[in-house]
Amino acid sequence: MKYSVTSIVQHLVLLAISLAAAQAYAQDLEAIPKTAAKRGDSKEKIELGKSLYFDPRLSATGTVSCNSCHNLMEGGDDGRATSMGVDGLTGPRNAPTVWNSVFQASQFWDGRSATLEDQAKGPMVANVEMGMIGHDQVVSRIKDIPGYVVQFEATFGKTDSVTIENAVDAIAAFERTLITPNSALDRYLVGDKQAMNEAQIRGMELFESTGCTECHAGPALNGWQPGSDAEFVDFPRFEDSPYVEKYDFVADVGRSMATGDNGDDHYFKTPTLRNITLTAPYFHNGRVNSLTEAIRVMASTQLDVKFTDQELADLAAFMEALEGEFPNLTFPRLPSRSGESVIHASLNAGPSDQG
Amino acid sequence: MKYSVTSIVQHLVLLAISLAAAQAYAQDLEAIPKTAAKRGDSKEKIELGKSLYFDPRLSATGTVSCNSCHNLMEGGDDGRATSMGVDGLTGPRNAPTVWNSVFQASQFWDGRSATLEDQAKGPMVANVEMGMIGHDQVVSRIKDIPGYVVQFEATFGKTDSVTIENAVDAIAAFERTLITPNSALDRYLVGDKQAMNEAQIRGMELFESTGCTECHAGPALNGWQPGSDAEFVDFPRFEDSPYVEKYDFVADVGRSMATGDNGDDHYFKTPTLRNITLTAPYFHNGRVNSLTEAIRVMASTQLDVKFTDQELADLAAFMEALEGEFPNLTFPRLPSRSGESVIHASLNAGPSDQG
Repeated sequence: MKYSVTSIVQHLVLLAISLAAAQAYAQDLEAIPKTAAKRGDSKEKIELGKSLYFDPRLSATGTVSCNSCHNLMEGGDDGRATSMGVDGLTGPRNAPTVWNSVFQASQFWDGRSATLEDQAKGPMVANVEMGMIGHDQVVSRIKDIPGYVVQFEATFGKTDSVTIENAVDAIAAFERTLITPNSALDRYLVGDKQAMNEAQIRGMELFESTGCTECHAGPALNGWQPGSDAEFVDFPRFEDSPYVEKYDFVADVGRSMATGDNGDDHYFKTPTLRNITLTAPYFHNGRVNSLTEAIRVMASTQLDVKFTDQELADLAAFMEALEGEFPNLTFPRLPSRSGESVIHASLNAGPSDQG
Repeated sequence: MKYSVTSIVQHLVLLAISLAAAQAYAQDLEAIPKTAAKRGDSKEKIELGKSLYFDPRLSATGTVSCNSCHNLMEGGDDGRATSMGVDGLTGPRNAPTVWNSVFQASQFWDGRSATLEDQAKGPMVANVEMGMIGHDQVVSRIKDIPGYVVQFEATFGKTDSVTIENAVDAIAAFERTLITPNSALDRYLVGDKQAMNEAQIRGMELFESTGCTECHAGPALNGWQPGSDAEFVDFPRFEDSPYVEKYDFVADVGRSMATGDNGDDHYFKTPTLRNITLTAPYFHNGRVNSLTEAIRVMASTQLDVKFTDQELADLAAFMEALEGEFPNLTFPRLPSRSGESVIHASLNAGPSDQG
């Protein structure tokens, strides 16, 4: 790799930050925890959350579930640059993976939700995502399905149990189970030195020595530690990088849209690198198709570094070592309203339609 | 129920057809077979078919899978009047259930496919459904995913194994497992006389005595028998029924669109009534929201009968006895192309994007 002469000062600043970060963390890379359940994450709550997660009837058109954009059969995302919600509408940002999302100090690219529960409320009522008019409509839709009412009452008690707070509580409980342990890196870190091949080990060492772990450290390679506050990173740091214009990285100002503070312009949450091989395309706008190109971009925009082809291959090999083991999930059976759909239920319903 | 005086002749014709049908079938109602596997439906072929069935990457936008409109987590349909495909486009007809679809002599409302295999080819390249430009694009998309190539080769051999014929062969093999046995009716028919309650038994008797079993007979209550030819039914028969205009039942000419023969105008395939409580809204255009109203409509348009509220309630109770047991399905893990999405892969791919 080569550093450009023009950025020595910036590098010294980054070095200082890196040293501070190195002090903050016992080690840069850590094995991922295998559980993250919170008190109260009962089996029935998790099952209810799973049903809600997969239920497209929580969207206005009955076509979009949480899983539509965060597909648990694959990388926990949708493989699209930006997601497609109800009526074919598309949003401005790339869907982050839901796998290991419990290991984030904040949710969304701009970190505007502090918790999984708060995050789950957003897409339901975003007009380009699930498109519900408001959370009242979500609750009303759920109440229209008797099997759900039974499940909510069994989980949250008989009184006023179908609420949006309880719905997202259940969804978050399910999401806390979405952990992919035992990647090659995890096995390597706990002592199995055969778990990673030579290219992966070279990639890991380069990843640590170049400064990637300044942000991508900790068990989810995103800076998160148990109890840590959300941190945000300036992206792109090196605005002269040719990739900034090529991939239009400055149109989206990121965190300042959430805080209203111009000082947060172009700050974003550091995404996890767990299973990053499965979640192309990359970056907040999904403009970069391949992982190798994504590594080039990050090196250029964040570290002002240009890797050789061998280094790129080693880093990409290391990324493959971040693919974890996915839990075996069984399909939920979604409860139905007998003899009547809850989607567009008001259409065609003549006065004789309820007899 | 009351017959109108104006339709005596039509009723005599129906009676003759009913008697012929009664002769053809040992009994009107039969327990559903628990398996329908064909020779060659190997475990690996079924697993491959399951993955393809759930894979939204078989659509142009990467958002619509077979399961989007035929949701196996619920009634095997989508709860919508007509389905929503890629880009929010909607089609003209209601999505039939995929559950027990192996027990149909033909597929689609107009029976234009004789087999499950042929059916599976249609939606992939329908512009309002999965929207692929052609089957070549489907095959190319599958070939872009190395894990699929491995699965196809393991199932169909090393030579030219990724073909559209093999893809739909696998999907159909999976669909042949989608059977819901042991409904209350099935248990009743094999001797458990406690399996149905009194209202359900009254409903069943009325269902048989009124003429519903003229079409809705056999193990799937759709006229199908092993090896039987596809049969189509004139709908609506009694065009003076007020429901014909109310629900716009004559705009869609049905089977003649498939055959080009005007003599087939307004003929449709008899849909199964298995799990009919779970597949609202009803009819080929999805215009009727509730099952009770659907029963009223059928009585009026097909039999020129008007049921009392008690009779309607008994018939609806009988329909509940047609809900079967759904198999426990585990999620497939869809293979990924490492570090690169196959959706819109040509976008943003600069010359340096493959390095």
